[in-house]
Amino acid sequence: MMASRSRFASPVLKTARSAGRVSGIRTSTKAAQRTALVGSCSPAPVLLSWPRSYSLRSVSAVRPFSVSASRTASRFTSDAYPDIKRDDRFAQLTEEHVAYFRDVLGKDHALIDGVTSNAVEDDLEAFNADWTRKYRGHCKLVLKPGTTLEVSQILKYCNDNHLAVVPQGGNTGLVGGSVPVFDEIVMNMARMNQIRSFDDVSGILVADSGAILEVVDNWLAEKGYIFPLDLGAKGTCQIGGNVSTNAGGLRLLRYGSLHGSVLGLEAVLPDGTIVDDLSKLRKNNTGYDLKQLFIGAEGTIGVVTGVSIICPQRSPAVNVAFFGLDSYEKAQLAFKEAKGRLGEILSAFEMMDGISIDFVHKVTGNRKPLEADHPFYCLVETSGSNADHDGEKLEAFLEDVMGQEIVSDGVVAQDDTQIQTLWKWREGVPEVVGHWGGVYKYDVSIPLADLYTIVEDTKAKVQEAGLMGDTDEYPVVDVIGYGHMGDANVHLNVAVRRYDKRVEEVLEPWVYEWIEKREGSISAEHGLGLAKKKYIGYSRSPTMVGLMKHIKDHYDPNGIMNPYKYI
Amino acid sequence: MMASRSRFASPVLKTARSAGRVSGIRTSTKAAQRTALVGSCSPAPVLLSWPRSYSLRSVSAVRPFSVSASRTASRFTSDAYPDIKRDDRFAQLTEEHVAYFRDVLGKDHALIDGVTSNAVEDDLEAFNADWTRKYRGHCKLVLKPGTTLEVSQILKYCNDNHLAVVPQGGNTGLVGGSVPVFDEIVMNMARMNQIRSFDDVSGILVADSGAILEVVDNWLAEKGYIFPLDLGAKGTCQIGGNVSTNAGGLRLLRYGSLHGSVLGLEAVLPDGTIVDDLSKLRKNNTGYDLKQLFIGAEGTIGVVTGVSIICPQRSPAVNVAFFGLDSYEKAQLAFKEAKGRLGEILSAFEMMDGISIDFVHKVTGNRKPLEADHPFYCLVETSGSNADHDGEKLEAFLEDVMGQEIVSDGVVAQDDTQIQTLWKWREGVPEVVGHWGGVYKYDVSIPLADLYTIVEDTKAKVQEAGLMGDTDEYPVVDVIGYGHMGDANVHLNVAVRRYDKRVEEVLEPWVYEWIEKREGSISAEHGLGLAKKKYIGYSRSPTMVGLMKHIKDHYDPNGIMNPYKYI
Repeated sequence: MMASRSRFASPVLKTARSAGRVSGIRTSTKAAQRTALVGSCSPAPVLLSWPRSYSLRSVSAVRPFSVSASRTASRFTSDAYPDIKRDDRFAQLTEEHVAYFRDVLGKDHALIDGVTSNAVEDDLEAFNADWTRKYRGHCKLVLKPGTTLEVSQILKYCNDNHLAVVPQGGNTGLVGGSVPVFDEIVMNMARMNQIRSFDDVSGILVADSGAILEVVDNWLAEKGYIFPLDLGAKGTCQIGGNVSTNAGGLRLLRYGSLHGSVLGLEAVLPDGTIVDDLSKLRKNNTGYDLKQLFIGAEGTIGVVTGVSIICPQRSPAVNVAFFGLDSYEKAQLAFKEAKGRLGEILSAFEMMDGISIDFVHKVTGNRKPLEADHPFYCLVETSGSNADHDGEKLEAFLEDVMGQEIVSDGVVAQDDTQIQTLWKWREGVPEVVGHWGGVYKYDVSIPLADLYTIVEDTKAKVQEAGLMGDTDEYPVVDVIGYGHMGDANVHLNVAVRRYDKRVEEVLEPWVYEWIEKREGSISAEHGLGLAKKKYIGYSRSPTMVGLMKHIKDHYDPNGIMNPYKYI
Repeated sequence: MMASRSRFASPVLKTARSAGRVSGIRTSTKAAQRTALVGSCSPAPVLLSWPRSYSLRSVSAVRPFSVSASRTASRFTSDAYPDIKRDDRFAQLTEEHVAYFRDVLGKDHALIDGVTSNAVEDDLEAFNADWTRKYRGHCKLVLKPGTTLEVSQILKYCNDNHLAVVPQGGNTGLVGGSVPVFDEIVMNMARMNQIRSFDDVSGILVADSGAILEVVDNWLAEKGYIFPLDLGAKGTCQIGGNVSTNAGGLRLLRYGSLHGSVLGLEAVLPDGTIVDDLSKLRKNNTGYDLKQLFIGAEGTIGVVTGVSIICPQRSPAVNVAFFGLDSYEKAQLAFKEAKGRLGEILSAFEMMDGISIDFVHKVTGNRKPLEADHPFYCLVETSGSNADHDGEKLEAFLEDVMGQEIVSDGVVAQDDTQIQTLWKWREGVPEVVGHWGGVYKYDVSIPLADLYTIVEDTKAKVQEAGLMGDTDEYPVVDVIGYGHMGDANVHLNVAVRRYDKRVEEVLEPWVYEWIEKREGSISAEHGLGLAKKKYIGYSRSPTMVGLMKHIKDHYDPNGIMNPYKYI
């Protein structure tokens, strides 16, 4: 059902489905002229169209599903992991402790006190339970410091009094790293949310760690800059949490890792020492780059309170194309062509398998971007400084992948709204996958050629075990794969109706052994948290793990920071 | 004296000097057609030409000057720095030690033994003396391991026997970090120079640390990739040394810091532990990113033996433009326009003051790229995937900076040879600046607006002190500034006829205080070595320095690694 028919119908269409589609790259007059030329070229590409009647409204309704699903949640972590015992080194919280914290924080709203009162049980729940509905702690005290000095005073006191602490940003982590296991104090950073400085020549931003990613990015947009990180949880996650988990996200392909873009950090060690490494310089070779230890440390050696980061200029021209493909091999070919044809303007190359897109469709009810179903989909984004040039490059790429029949069908967004809508089909996958009850998530780096094989092998494994089916008796709904193909990072998700020991026994350690054999990473970007702690040995040698434990002991000798997790 | 006159003479030339110059962006037919269009636009840009008779030969003769000058060198460091005493913790080398090392290394050519023989004095000199001619050690033993295991055996033995070690790459450092002070053993990595693996889909390269940067880059060029780092010493420096000094260089603006592009390292700790962190994955969030500590550690906690790094695709289209400008303010404006107009294809923006270019001219005898003299010069490089698009962007930029009279005159390279030649005017500056006898080098990051003020203020300071003049009685020849404007990194160089205490007293600590006031870095990219060790406090707080010392003590409790330097 195409809303607009083409005047540039392709003369060599290979599939009935794509007949009569129009080339629709951006909307400038120049682009239209070029399109006409391209349309008459030989070999003619299979041309693309945007279904104009496509509805945006329903996509934006994705999130409520996952939110409502989260209500079904949560055994206590301590029940789900009976092997983990509360560490006796840690003191029990007393009224005296609470009085001290109340004194430091000054304000009542900076503290949720379930120690001296039972009336705040419901308020504590949001800080105890995580987004995946797999982890839930017994925290009785949430502290929300407003300054770095308060963080320092609190941590020093906790260290002196052997009180365990879980630093918490937006609590959008996926490995149980941001919620307590037992009665650890939650230090929530939401009140430290100010932008401290911005230099609009260099693009160097300094902000509090509790600033929300999307808020910061919108603020930067007004200055013509972009935060060098983007991810689905951007409306909730905090930049301090992003740094602490070394978040990868959607545009690492273009802007690189936080280890490169973070220029400085302010952090507080357990003994209250303020690590004042908040450099606003692009280059500063004066000694060991200690801030790097906090990037990806998941709050286990201190709390990040401020971030200095270099932000790229925002690209005035952004294009998004969305393809259907016959096989993973073709997705690989498309990626190779994208690297060659799009070069420096390629800013994302995302892959979703057919079931992933089916899931989003089923949960949201939205009409799919392409009429037919395809085993694989790719989302390609370009960001550049010149809309005409980018349009030409994208056209050359499209001609290429359509002409070579690498891609079966596709659409190109014609405006920002359509760009957002297409992105929702990618960002929506992790949001809907837990809809049926829960999800086993594996976030994996493996060499590109084998990237999807893990999904196929896992599905076969679960099917063989008789655990997957369409009816309620089967715990597993389906096995899907999607992710950042440009970074060789796939999210293997096993969608389940309920968490079930039999499923876990089939999956683990089998999945980790599979990854180890291919020298992959058992956690590409999600981190270790509680979920992956015991599997680090599949991706790191005993020597490396030993060296890491030294670092932990060096900075946190009492072990108060985010205990029971990481390494 | 222009060799080729324009058929597109500009109708609105502002300066007599630039009359009749041709627009010469690349050589494709399309570009020529566009140029014609641009030439007839209003307001017409001041058009640019390339002097075709320009000689390449003499530029390539730059290096011999600096090499011959290096013969004049070198008091012993121990004489120049009488305050530094040999650390009594370290043992004196004995025949027994040498016998052990000979046994480990097996081959005679892997060892230069001045302990049991005096015949190798001359051979040792190249490992004792550094490129700047300011530092010279008393090393009697050079070891050249061929494998990581040999490095491990050597270091463990040194650690057990309290023998101090200086890891040495290409010995092109500028702060005295790569040569001994006293009788430390030099561990030279030149024999470990193999490429271990390369993945031509992801661009991930794994190589021995002793591989020479230019050799690796040329090897990558054949595969369509580029090493994400480039610097003047590329023909000599080694990638392990680049990583150990966190080298910045000419293209950091585009490809970012090594903290982002290095994916994994193999290194050996003083106790012989092999840090096997040679990940070939773009993303791997499994624990503390310990490899980061070795990036920029200058060999003070271990020896880097292998490097895994992500290499970008090589851009098929490269353009270089070279401008003369009236003032530093105009150079800033040109940079701002370059960021806006060139966007994602801008790969370098370098600045040189007039005296810098005069120096290269005087020492090499080469004809300058521009006829007239200018107070400032900029070199702008673009790298992109589409020559036509890049040409258009460059033209728009040129129209802009010429039309607005930001730039006074300029040329655009027409082929790779001319690109190399223009780059020699930038890369030649550090090569010739020591020609008169020596140079005090400061490698500084400061906010862009103040970047050149430090050069002006330093020159005024030296002049006031009566230390600068044209004749031999004055120690100072001149004060110059050049560097990576795109990274807010300037090289302040004081060219001298001889090293003179009076000059040092005028310069230091005054220069460092100047930088501290502007929250700059006293070492943007050269590192600390011996030269900047005692000045770290101007760029780092006592807290940070204290935390760094803990790291040093943690990994190198006997202090054998590159002693007397760094922190």
